[in-house]
Amino acid sequence: MLKRTVFFISDGTGITAGALGKLLEHFPGTNFTQVRLPFSDTLDKIKHAQEDILKAAEVDGGRPVVIMSLGNIELRNALKQSNAYFIDLFNTFIDPLGLELDQQPLTGAGIAHSVMGTKYNDRMEAVNFTLNHDDGMTNSGLEEAQVILIGVSRCGKTPTSVYLAMQFGIKAANYPLIPEDFERGSLPAVLHKHLDKIFGLTIKPERLHAVRNERRSGSFYASLDNCRKEITTAENLMRDAGITWADSTSRSVEELSAIIMEKTRKHV
Amino acid sequence: MLKRTVFFISDGTGITAGALGKLLEHFPGTNFTQVRLPFSDTLDKIKHAQEDILKAAEVDGGRPVVIMSLGNIELRNALKQSNAYFIDLFNTFIDPLGLELDQQPLTGAGIAHSVMGTKYNDRMEAVNFTLNHDDGMTNSGLEEAQVILIGVSRCGKTPTSVYLAMQFGIKAANYPLIPEDFERGSLPAVLHKHLDKIFGLTIKPERLHAVRNERRSGSFYASLDNCRKEITTAENLMRDAGITWADSTSRSVEELSAIIMEKTRKHV
Repeated sequence: MLKRTVFFISDGTGITAGALGKLLEHFPGTNFTQVRLPFSDTLDKIKHAQEDILKAAEVDGGRPVVIMSLGNIELRNALKQSNAYFIDLFNTFIDPLGLELDQQPLTGAGIAHSVMGTKYNDRMEAVNFTLNHDDGMTNSGLEEAQVILIGVSRCGKTPTSVYLAMQFGIKAANYPLIPEDFERGSLPAVLHKHLDKIFGLTIKPERLHAVRNERRSGSFYASLDNCRKEITTAENLMRDAGITWADSTSRSVEELSAIIMEKTRKHV
Repeated sequence: MLKRTVFFISDGTGITAGALGKLLEHFPGTNFTQVRLPFSDTLDKIKHAQEDILKAAEVDGGRPVVIMSLGNIELRNALKQSNAYFIDLFNTFIDPLGLELDQQPLTGAGIAHSVMGTKYNDRMEAVNFTLNHDDGMTNSGLEEAQVILIGVSRCGKTPTSVYLAMQFGIKAANYPLIPEDFERGSLPAVLHKHLDKIFGLTIKPERLHAVRNERRSGSFYASLDNCRKEITTAENLMRDAGITWADSTSRSVEELSAIIMEKTRKHV
């Protein structure tokens, strides 16, 4: 298998450059080693990066890919003396976008991910809200939630809620559906007035069985039979209440979040 | 102020395209409205997107910016019939990278953020670990942590830990430094054997005072005097133990995470 090293070199966090690393998934035929070099804001650090690039090329037997975001033009030009395949966020995006907008871009380091950024405070407030409203921990403040995820225990509510909050600044509570609800045959009373912002998650019984078994191996709770019953009953409850749901079995939190935002018409 | 709408149009989650939205922070002179259109995987949806683009251009008085990631070439070409400024991740990145690697890229929808992606399971495992080791909740399993964040209450440990886990798959526990520790004059005993993976957070007293006052207004806990004392003592404890720390006062979780990964030499 082809080997290549990918460097993310930035004068800031390197997180925007790093996000493009996801595009490497389009090339499953190459074995990528990813190296992050954030805060590369001096000529000295750039020189070290260049040495690393040279070494990686030798080890891999192919020139590295460098995804770079350097505001300082001197550093940018210095780095490009290396033998590598460059994807330069300034050249490719920021400068051309500046022409389109007829506006000079800011070139300081760390602009994309500073606390001054758009929505930063909203995002942190949402993370706090979500962690304080995880797993039906409290019924107070649900009015403030923008989304309430429901579903059986261990179907993916928590990581999805955290992702919605961290990434998009959405205050996402989550509430488990538990045996009491199944016996009563209806959603928890506290949720009735929030139906418009509830979104359901479900999961395949076999997968739930496997996930629960990791924690409580051999328990009734984790048994395939119980998982099947819980899921069927939960889906019936959701159907009766007119709640939209998605299956988390083979979806990432990124995919689930995108679906939830679309279906609940959250625009951020 | 100049107004422009930015569309993120993808056949998948649109999260990679959306990440480039952070680059808009380089143009504070423009008031951007951001619209996400994930799962745009049919000609019909593309046509709806085109109508939205047309409307936005009229409202803004300037053509929209479209950041697009569409694997299907027919959909890609259809969308480009609109009058907009296009940033096409396939044209700009994926196809040229394919030439560099001498490899055809996968063009299916949702490849960048599927559960099949690199490290997805590690990331979810790290999120679980981090939520179960938040705020010194338990001492068991700290051996498994890759990073342990310490610092006074409300200095930013929790959101930073969650970000490290969700974004990079780092198992990040966090442990508060509390009055007991300050009286004893040393770090909690349980941390002594983990010094090599501890990283400290500190914060300016005025900021801590403001943050704590939001929750417990007028309390001794939130008083500026107490905040000052806690911070000084915590910094002394960390200094004595040889622990590196960073000030969270004006840093985002993205910036703190990048610093922590660099200083603790975590490579992901």
